[in-house]
Amino acid sequence: MSDTNRSWILVQRPVGDDFDAALKFRELPMPEPGPDEILVRTLYLSLDPANRGWMAGPTYIPAVPLDGPMWGGIQGRVVRSNSPDFQQGDIVGGFGSWSDYCVLPASGANRIPDMGGLPLTTALSLFGGAGGTAYVGVLDVGQAKAGETFVVSGAAGSVGSLAGQIAKIQGCTVIGIAGSPEKCAWLTGELGFDHAIDYKHENVRKRLAELCPKGVDLYFENVGGAVGNAVIANLAQNGRVVLCGMVSQYNNSKPEAELDMLPVLLKAGTVKGFILLNHLDRLGEASMKLAGWLAEGKIKYHADIADGLENALTAFKSLFTSGASHRGKLMVRVDPAAN
Amino acid sequence: MSDTNRSWILVQRPVGDDFDAALKFRELPMPEPGPDEILVRTLYLSLDPANRGWMAGPTYIPAVPLDGPMWGGIQGRVVRSNSPDFQQGDIVGGFGSWSDYCVLPASGANRIPDMGGLPLTTALSLFGGAGGTAYVGVLDVGQAKAGETFVVSGAAGSVGSLAGQIAKIQGCTVIGIAGSPEKCAWLTGELGFDHAIDYKHENVRKRLAELCPKGVDLYFENVGGAVGNAVIANLAQNGRVVLCGMVSQYNNSKPEAELDMLPVLLKAGTVKGFILLNHLDRLGEASMKLAGWLAEGKIKYHADIADGLENALTAFKSLFTSGASHRGKLMVRVDPAAN
Repeated sequence: MSDTNRSWILVQRPVGDDFDAALKFRELPMPEPGPDEILVRTLYLSLDPANRGWMAGPTYIPAVPLDGPMWGGIQGRVVRSNSPDFQQGDIVGGFGSWSDYCVLPASGANRIPDMGGLPLTTALSLFGGAGGTAYVGVLDVGQAKAGETFVVSGAAGSVGSLAGQIAKIQGCTVIGIAGSPEKCAWLTGELGFDHAIDYKHENVRKRLAELCPKGVDLYFENVGGAVGNAVIANLAQNGRVVLCGMVSQYNNSKPEAELDMLPVLLKAGTVKGFILLNHLDRLGEASMKLAGWLAEGKIKYHADIADGLENALTAFKSLFTSGASHRGKLMVRVDPAAN
Repeated sequence: MSDTNRSWILVQRPVGDDFDAALKFRELPMPEPGPDEILVRTLYLSLDPANRGWMAGPTYIPAVPLDGPMWGGIQGRVVRSNSPDFQQGDIVGGFGSWSDYCVLPASGANRIPDMGGLPLTTALSLFGGAGGTAYVGVLDVGQAKAGETFVVSGAAGSVGSLAGQIAKIQGCTVIGIAGSPEKCAWLTGELGFDHAIDYKHENVRKRLAELCPKGVDLYFENVGGAVGNAVIANLAQNGRVVLCGMVSQYNNSKPEAELDMLPVLLKAGTVKGFILLNHLDRLGEASMKLAGWLAEGKIKYHADIADGLENALTAFKSLFTSGASHRGKLMVRVDPAAN
């Protein structure tokens, strides 16, 4: 094992979409685990729009400190354990850093069990944050019911692609909004969405009015901005909006993400924000249900894997480039030997 | 009785705040009540921001037809009845027109009982739409609870001034936002609000952060725009926003009223739109409770009365002029003899 550790360091808060200036790839000394900590070889790094918020300032968690390694969800293999709960070789998930190796508190690491024939990446792509967010958002927060019209934006993304499929299983008519004809074809083809709208080439507001003249009962919001307003303009009486993300707005110079609330007022609608951290007790059920649906062939997922820690920045930027070919769950394979 | 009837006619949809071009005062033939209709001498005309929406286009009710009389809430005295349910001399409330006389369907008229020592205007200022909206908004939609921090904008208006007092009775700490030092003094003085913020002279966002460092549990939104965003920026964890109106935005050229939803997402908040029409079954309870609070001296109201139907337009415009001296429930006394 090397005595240095490559790491992406947050050297300044991001300004707009200038992540090149915010993050620098550096070589640091290998970290030492303290009492009740474990040293982990990073296998996969999860890349999510929420990373941007953590870089920018305090949210529901403190901001990533400047001149320290960037934070994020990781999967890794324990190489040294100062905790009775973990042994060398254990595969764990947790909140680590964008580094070859990182130290996790034992209390913040979760053992990832052997999933039979499923690759390790399934724990990021289907279970964990992506599937948990989709499950809780559609069923707990959104209360999706059979027969309802369900719309999801960012539909080809990690959460959106699962949210639409869960709503479909629930018996909803599902419409996905995504940024290219290829993504739309994937949604209605492989994933079984009823309709897909390509917001780069179609008028979302008019198209929705055609597809669902009675309005949108439940909108799973991942993007905000003009797409969000186009859906909200089509809200049904008592329609609900689940506010999961507003990725189109995250690189704005002003830290706001405005949406038109007039239809919400006039239609007596509800907008409900949620953060998965407040629903961690639901992850067990979510994983079991998702595993069952996977076994029955009712749900599909896609792992979008970039190779090499040095490519994390380039991959991360693709999350914010509308129309980029990225679909499904974006991650970086840090250890070339990871399955 | 004259055989002509003065009436405000909607000659074009309003553009921005140009109500002078939209409404013209004209003399028309006296209307004739048909079967099951009543002819009513207008006593008072209720002026509300919602009138603007009804002029502009379809909302939760159809748009006011062009070249017809403007619609609104009225109180009147029955002068001729073609319905067994009403007799000449009955005092009724309903959805009529901005006219000296108007025809109402008997099914759309409500008899206003003698209220003892209370003037007829109490039915507009305290009961009816203003009090009903405040009651349902604070208690049913908002679920205000003792010990919570409650903020209301448009706090010196008809609904806002009652909403704040109802939240106070409920045991909340109440902060009102209004547009002049005089209005603020009225809120904290006569109405017993805990604090008031003058948004024309104070930084609402900073002032709220000082007054309630733990955040706003419940925001009763009447105005939208910058004031709305300043409150939402101070939302507490799981904070709620009751969307009652967004009057600052109604004269916008684009029919939108955007609010920042990022704090709603990050704080797992809820925004709930509501329209009193969906809660008419609650008006009976609301009136009884309001009457009881009035008798106990726990709630106060103010009738802001303009005299003369010909002055309805000027009075209406004051609803949209921030900092205008108007406070409480705005109405026009159409019949000079009305009590």
